[in-house]
Amino acid sequence: MRYHHLPSFTGADALRVAERDEPAPGPGQILVRMRAWSVNHRDLLIASGRYGRGMRANVVPLSDGAGEVVATGQGTTRWTTGDRVLSVFMPNWQSGPIDERSAAGALGGPVDGVLAEYVVFDEDAVVSAPAHLDMPEAATLPCAAVTAWHALVTHGGLAPGQQVLALGSGGVSVFAVQLAVAGGARVTVTSGDDRKLERLCGLGAADGVNYRRVPEWGRTIHGRSGGVDHVLEVGGAGTLRQSLAAVRTGGRVSVIGVLADGAGISVPHLLWKAVTVQGLSVGSRAVFEELNRAIVRHAIHPIVDRVFPFGEAAEAYRHLGTGKHFGKVVIVAD
Amino acid sequence: MRYHHLPSFTGADALRVAERDEPAPGPGQILVRMRAWSVNHRDLLIASGRYGRGMRANVVPLSDGAGEVVATGQGTTRWTTGDRVLSVFMPNWQSGPIDERSAAGALGGPVDGVLAEYVVFDEDAVVSAPAHLDMPEAATLPCAAVTAWHALVTHGGLAPGQQVLALGSGGVSVFAVQLAVAGGARVTVTSGDDRKLERLCGLGAADGVNYRRVPEWGRTIHGRSGGVDHVLEVGGAGTLRQSLAAVRTGGRVSVIGVLADGAGISVPHLLWKAVTVQGLSVGSRAVFEELNRAIVRHAIHPIVDRVFPFGEAAEAYRHLGTGKHFGKVVIVAD
Amino acid sequence: MRYHHLPSFTGADALRVAERDEPAPGPGQILVRMRAWSVNHRDLLIASGRYGRGMRANVVPLSDGAGEVVATGQGTTRWTTGDRVLSVFMPNWQSGPIDERSAAGALGGPVDGVLAEYVVFDEDAVVSAPAHLDMPEAATLPCAAVTAWHALVTHGGLAPGQQVLALGSGGVSVFAVQLAVAGGARVTVTSGDDRKLERLCGLGAADGVNYRRVPEWGRTIHGRSGGVDHVLEVGGAGTLRQSLAAVRTGGRVSVIGVLADGAGISVPHLLWKAVTVQGLSVGSRAVFEELNRAIVRHAIHPIVDRVFPFGEAAEAYRHLGTGKHFGKVVIVAD
Amino acid sequence: MRYHHLPSFTGADALRVAERDEPAPGPGQILVRMRAWSVNHRDLLIASGRYGRGMRANVVPLSDGAGEVVATGQGTTRWTTGDRVLSVFMPNWQSGPIDERSAAGALGGPVDGVLAEYVVFDEDAVVSAPAHLDMPEAATLPCAAVTAWHALVTHGGLAPGQQVLALGSGGVSVFAVQLAVAGGARVTVTSGDDRKLERLCGLGAADGVNYRRVPEWGRTIHGRSGGVDHVLEVGGAGTLRQSLAAVRTGGRVSVIGVLADGAGISVPHLLWKAVTVQGLSVGSRAVFEELNRAIVRHAIHPIVDRVFPFGEAAEAYRHLGTGKHFGKVVIVAD
Repeated sequence: MRYHHLPSFTGADALRVAERDEPAPGPGQILVRMRAWSVNHRDLLIASGRYGRGMRANVVPLSDGAGEVVATGQGTTRWTTGDRVLSVFMPNWQSGPIDERSAAGALGGPVDGVLAEYVVFDEDAVVSAPAHLDMPEAATLPCAAVTAWHALVTHGGLAPGQQVLALGSGGVSVFAVQLAVAGGARVTVTSGDDRKLERLCGLGAADGVNYRRVPEWGRTIHGRSGGVDHVLEVGGAGTLRQSLAAVRTGGRVSVIGVLADGAGISVPHLLWKAVTVQGLSVGSRAVFEELNRAIVRHAIHPIVDRVFPFGEAAEAYRHLGTGKHFGKVVIVAD
Repeated sequence: MRYHHLPSFTGADALRVAERDEPAPGPGQILVRMRAWSVNHRDLLIASGRYGRGMRANVVPLSDGAGEVVATGQGTTRWTTGDRVLSVFMPNWQSGPIDERSAAGALGGPVDGVLAEYVVFDEDAVVSAPAHLDMPEAATLPCAAVTAWHALVTHGGLAPGQQVLALGSGGVSVFAVQLAVAGGARVTVTSGDDRKLERLCGLGAADGVNYRRVPEWGRTIHGRSGGVDHVLEVGGAGTLRQSLAAVRTGGRVSVIGVLADGAGISVPHLLWKAVTVQGLSVGSRAVFEELNRAIVRHAIHPIVDRVFPFGEAAEAYRHLGTGKHFGKVVIVAD
Repeated sequence: MRYHHLPSFTGADALRVAERDEPAPGPGQILVRMRAWSVNHRDLLIASGRYGRGMRANVVPLSDGAGEVVATGQGTTRWTTGDRVLSVFMPNWQSGPIDERSAAGALGGPVDGVLAEYVVFDEDAVVSAPAHLDMPEAATLPCAAVTAWHALVTHGGLAPGQQVLALGSGGVSVFAVQLAVAGGARVTVTSGDDRKLERLCGLGAADGVNYRRVPEWGRTIHGRSGGVDHVLEVGGAGTLRQSLAAVRTGGRVSVIGVLADGAGISVPHLLWKAVTVQGLSVGSRAVFEELNRAIVRHAIHPIVDRVFPFGEAAEAYRHLGTGKHFGKVVIVAD
Repeated sequence: MRYHHLPSFTGADALRVAERDEPAPGPGQILVRMRAWSVNHRDLLIASGRYGRGMRANVVPLSDGAGEVVATGQGTTRWTTGDRVLSVFMPNWQSGPIDERSAAGALGGPVDGVLAEYVVFDEDAVVSAPAHLDMPEAATLPCAAVTAWHALVTHGGLAPGQQVLALGSGGVSVFAVQLAVAGGARVTVTSGDDRKLERLCGLGAADGVNYRRVPEWGRTIHGRSGGVDHVLEVGGAGTLRQSLAAVRTGGRVSVIGVLADGAGISVPHLLWKAVTVQGLSVGSRAVFEELNRAIVRHAIHPIVDRVFPFGEAAEAYRHLGTGKHFGKVVIVAD
């Protein structure tokens, strides 16, 4: 079978396809024939050696994948051949709060990821793919959608009438719009592109601000909303300062993007407004299952920006790197 | 001005209209010309002396009312003449958890209520009426809608995809359907009347069970839903037993109706399923304001079953007592 | 190796010792030589066929055990030979809220327990034994101490100055006294025996009530405390009624004992006082680890009432059944 | 009667004593003869015009005071003459989360404070002084002790065995040590002075690090503790960077001091460790009452560093400004 790996960390160009034997599932494991994958900004950082934690040469990249169970190991009880499953970002993080052991096991970083034609998983390291989604759609969920749900619902206590601010139109933000709307919240979005603002409003966002035309968008959004309850901060230079301006007294800023820089965290701001700033890394398997319940009940379809074949994974990386996407960039099996 | 009072506690017949001078607001107070009121099951119990706690003869009944500010006392800052306001069920309960002092101040029980043409309130004992509601609609909110929100959102952590079970078609349950749907939950309802089930589904409920045809409805609902996350238990003989059967492992039953009887609370059931059973009495002013934000954003219109004139308040009580209503029974100023 | 099993469910007499080969650990598993066990009231119910859920003939009894790792299976990373470990009550319940799958895997019930000389565990199905405890002490923790911690801390939010009521002097209640005192709470206890009340006060309880002399102890405790914040309800006829009388408005009753009967749950009581009644079954591995951290930091020694040799396990059951114990009844390897 | 005010904002020198008539309590109000006050770092910032929000010339300074009720207004029910009471930092913040209206009413800032011989309070704007404290001790609680409790208990979920890090030996940090020890936590402290470290250990801290000798104290504390659960960040240049190094994965940093600067908030740090950083401003009346319950039950005596007479309030400010204090700086009535 073929798989991608990273012999070096020089960016998308570093991706190499190689061949090895199809692995066999051990006791309590399953073998999955992968059908689709999605790329996250984190994968670009990993490929270019900017992801902070020690990367292992030749690591198999990507955390997000969807496929079908083709074999089950001894004593497996949760799955049967033909089941459609999705990878769990940190396979050891089953539920409850994160700990260091779980964090160290994130796929596609120090630990081998899923960009291979066949992958062996522990049986509790995958969840069911929602039935109404095709494989490319389903492959978008493990990182971006779980992150948005974890921030908005698990920690943010999303409630009808609440106000949510999502920044930009990347994967997490587009899911944030879809999920917050499903929960009855009023969503404000930002973008540097009016057509993207329009598309976000088409997904249910109630208000949009073009940050190119309104550099002090934090104050503007505070004025228009009276202060939002929750910001999903995915980052970019100086956005935290604006997010802290936009949030209401007693509100919450979830820092979920490695793009964010902390230069703008003003302590007096934190204090005056009694704001909670929380770092978040995706979420547990239990969180993923809660998300899926909502995805199914609301028949939400993830927004797939563009699809690339397995052999052109590097192109998928490059496309994501341009920042021109709206929603998720996906790779499919040839 | 005219007002109703209860010289005795013999039921709806005990209501008497009397006349007294219009009161004047003191410092920090407002005078409200009442325009509409709503009746809750609690008011029937109070009028018939079955409400448990010591009632005071000649108490002015009702907790729920809507009106306009017609005068403001010295130092008042929150309101101005012409503002449309709603009574807060326990005026001392501003936010946070309940305490005994707040509980002792519930309107229309030991403390005089609002069934009068003019009422003086402390300025923090009312909230704004949502602008899209007329006075009869707005008057339905203070007890039933606040209770449903407090149970579902404040304690229940309502989330998209969650499953909620509401019993019957009284005021609290109809609001529960509307609010749970606004929050993206899947709602199951029960009734003894198929036309009511149909109306509840028209409001967004996804499933309905006629408890006359399905006496073991708890088990049935568990089977169809896989166990609901949250039951709003408004009571009736033996319903708690069914509610505990319907709820999932780790789920929640909010006991919000004085009609409920506890005969059916089975301790092994509580233990096996690790269920939380929580008694709830309406909610604080802060909870009311959160509710209103959702009522406004979702343009929810309360369901008014029937409207009676001020002089026929006793008829409103009797109509509620028949149990034939769907939603709220309202009284309006002549 | 020798092990106990239950060919029938006629009580302690049903326990039989049998012989089988020492098991071998598979991948990700460990083999533990057991050194001590403890008996819980649940084990008496199981042995006598009163535990509700379908028991399997010849089940190996007991959930609580302590021992040393003597062999490790392939790929094991958490343990090494010689480590002292304790069983986790529900091995699948790693953290977060309970679910049905975890509940179905409780040891010594439908699933084989630990009353054997050697037991194989998945490597995440045990926790470290606190170093300052000997094996008999350590063996008391898995069910009773985890339950007390889960109720008091995880759900009860134990805080300095809070008031806790613990009923009787069984395993859970004695741990509740020790843990609540460590957390700075003021603890009231009940017993039918003044010497036991004295011993409980010796462990740090601030007040004790003899329920034989004060049948309406709920009202008495409410009067003396102003209403306790939290009751650990381990049961007995009619105790729930008294617990609801003792608790404050807005307080919490954790129902943790299968002995409890629900006859006394008065719905008006629940409502007037806005009480939360929560069923609890022990706790997850994460809860056990939190407990151990406190046990270690406060150098808490569990109270071992009496110790029986492995061959006389039935005597341990009978002694627990008399209700004369104070703290935990333990079995040790011959 | 005499009172202090701030005609200008040039520092401690700006304080002026003036004379005016004793005020009279209106309806629902009480008149308090003040006996003692305490000074917080915030008061220094206000006096020197560095407190950010618009100050009003001639404002009466200080939020913290203790005194006796000497007269009660019409309709007052909570207090009687002779009661010993303490000011609530934000009189409108009764319970629940903070809002902008409460934040705008903090004493001694935009709104007149309590550094006067007689002060009129709304009857719900004070709490009882713990009986075992003298007036100087009691006057230390309203800002520093409430802040420490709010951070540690209300938000931090203080539990036995938890690890807390408190920075320095100012008012908040010394209370944090006392309260965390009362709750059974293990406390680490920092100071630049070994004698202060010794005194903090005398109050129950388990470990201390001299930040002058160990500039990278965050890493050192992480190494010794395995990562603390909770940091009370009172500030100073670059301390946030160290605090983020000291905290465990999934831990919490409460930012409670205006001294803190945000330069050190590293977003990757927040993300890798999934840390929550929360700004906190003192706490509500309900939080103060919870604190007092613990202060009473544990017979905690606040640490009073030094006492100045009313006429030498400016000296008290200057002494606090030197940073040489340990615990609280107090002013007493002549």
